[in-house]
Amino acid sequence: MTPLSRSAILNIIDGIEPPDEFWRARARAHLDTLTKPLGSLGYLEDLAAQVAAIRRANPVLPMSKAVYVFAADHGITAEGVSAYPSAVTKQMVLNFVAGGAAVSVLARLHGVALHVVDMGVDGDFENVSGLLHRKVRKGTRNMLREPAMTDEELSQALRAGAELADEAAAAGHTVLAVGEMGIGNTTAASAITCALTGSTALRATGPGTGLDDAAHESKTAVVDAIVKKHLAELTALNPLDILRCVGGLEIAAMTGMILAAARSRIALMIDGFISSAAAALAVAMEPRIRGYLIAGHRSKEPGHRLLLEHLGLDPLLDLEMRLGEGSGAVLAMPILESAVALYSQMATFSSAGVSEALA
Amino acid sequence: MTPLSRSAILNIIDGIEPPDEFWRARARAHLDTLTKPLGSLGYLEDLAAQVAAIRRANPVLPMSKAVYVFAADHGITAEGVSAYPSAVTKQMVLNFVAGGAAVSVLARLHGVALHVVDMGVDGDFENVSGLLHRKVRKGTRNMLREPAMTDEELSQALRAGAELADEAAAAGHTVLAVGEMGIGNTTAASAITCALTGSTALRATGPGTGLDDAAHESKTAVVDAIVKKHLAELTALNPLDILRCVGGLEIAAMTGMILAAARSRIALMIDGFISSAAAALAVAMEPRIRGYLIAGHRSKEPGHRLLLEHLGLDPLLDLEMRLGEGSGAVLAMPILESAVALYSQMATFSSAGVSEALA
Repeated sequence: MTPLSRSAILNIIDGIEPPDEFWRARARAHLDTLTKPLGSLGYLEDLAAQVAAIRRANPVLPMSKAVYVFAADHGITAEGVSAYPSAVTKQMVLNFVAGGAAVSVLARLHGVALHVVDMGVDGDFENVSGLLHRKVRKGTRNMLREPAMTDEELSQALRAGAELADEAAAAGHTVLAVGEMGIGNTTAASAITCALTGSTALRATGPGTGLDDAAHESKTAVVDAIVKKHLAELTALNPLDILRCVGGLEIAAMTGMILAAARSRIALMIDGFISSAAAALAVAMEPRIRGYLIAGHRSKEPGHRLLLEHLGLDPLLDLEMRLGEGSGAVLAMPILESAVALYSQMATFSSAGVSEALA
Repeated sequence: MTPLSRSAILNIIDGIEPPDEFWRARARAHLDTLTKPLGSLGYLEDLAAQVAAIRRANPVLPMSKAVYVFAADHGITAEGVSAYPSAVTKQMVLNFVAGGAAVSVLARLHGVALHVVDMGVDGDFENVSGLLHRKVRKGTRNMLREPAMTDEELSQALRAGAELADEAAAAGHTVLAVGEMGIGNTTAASAITCALTGSTALRATGPGTGLDDAAHESKTAVVDAIVKKHLAELTALNPLDILRCVGGLEIAAMTGMILAAARSRIALMIDGFISSAAAALAVAMEPRIRGYLIAGHRSKEPGHRLLLEHLGLDPLLDLEMRLGEGSGAVLAMPILESAVALYSQMATFSSAGVSEALA
């Protein structure tokens, strides 16, 4: 069903290797020489060693950080699954670029280059500088009635994300945060979660941007109906079919970016529910990329917990955020940089003349 | 038993008011106008509102941040309660000042002014520039045999911390991280935890910097014996007696700083187990300071969980760190700054022309 997308993916994942275990072990040995009790920096030590394994080098500052926010609309909003009108997707894209959105503020504060990508917003952007134009279509089709995308559209979105990852690599970025904006996209992420983890719609569906109980119940029924509608494709567990039937253009672009970034040995800071759905699809397509992923935070959206467990990732932050946009991933960037700073700048027991443990 | 310390404390806490609820409500109302679903920034919204309530003002960047690392030795190390020799306290103080310790690296990275204070290191510092000399005594007495401090020593340490808080306020700092270094001080913190929470020594005692199982068991027996030795003073639940009998000079200084900083409406980023013990004692002395506290992280040390529950604080980070030095508190500073940046720099629905929720 997805020959074009399959060919695009094979092209992207060709040559991906897992993070290097030699470098990880070497980094761990270095960490054990630093002036601190063994292992006392906790996850920060794991992070530093992961970056060494990803980069095949001793991690150093400064890191070159970027966040990509992929925006697209969703035909499923016709079913009343969101508290906000679809028009907000376009309005928020303008807000990202103007610097007033949460991710804009956080990216500025933490020195992260912000790239906003129109993958499929239902509206036109004219004379908007600073926006990357990769629109495939003005929103997906209503996945309750038909597949969200055609094979051609999916292939185009995957390739766009991969090309942006290549450009990021060429620009020297060493870590990318992956975020999104798209009214209706928690519905897509819930359906993807059901397909990948076998969860019920009830467990995988949350209130999104703020539905009340009745609307949340109705959204859950929509997710359930979507999964039943595409049951044959979803239970075949082919990630391309899952993405095509119940995904989104921004989700496909994130999947393409994640796969291609791993090929370029770039660390990937994953954000919340939607970007984790893209990451889970990417891992389903090529398991070797799992070691490139860092979970920036755990979102309050209930399906996110299922995806993090599915991926076996422990998030760096757990602050009950549920905004998307890459906000949680960008907020976690200073933690990653802290790990690298500690690795590269702390004194060793011998250089500082500090006595080691008695035992 | 503690007339001098009592007089010092009464002098410090005179005039402390709780954070201002009018400002908190006003900040929450502003947060609800920003371009994000209501409440979707989770704890970051609570943090921004807390800073507004503490400062009685709209929080803005830049924040002026400092970390104080209080160092002292502990007579209880004679009982073999630490994996490291006491000499490491002095060695690490030199490492802090030289810039090679974890807290030095993190403070530099995150723009936090580092102040290292000798409250009672068992050694002499000559010609060490950048060190604040407030030594009360070369280490506490062995608390298994006698009270750790005299009333005079306790009073002096409390006042030293309070005076440094006043100096920090005069220097314009708006948030202080509070950390420590002192071989043996997890034993003191465990005894304080038992006294304040009623916990058994078994639950409140961890492996510290890295004891093996047998040494951990022996340390637990020492904590149990300490608590029994000072039972009359500890069950009276007088925080000054607890501090004098089973505390430390660096812990007393942290307690004094926390109390005096609240008087100056400074936010306090608490670090791990030891600084939380100081914070819990400060709250026992003056409950109104609780609203000034932010828990930077949850340490892996088991007693820390008990103290956070006792204080009713949710930590910002939970990364299995167990280093002390203020490292977890400094690591949390970018999260606090992120909250303030979002509060002060995000666009509102009306300014950005973004549609609000449909409901």
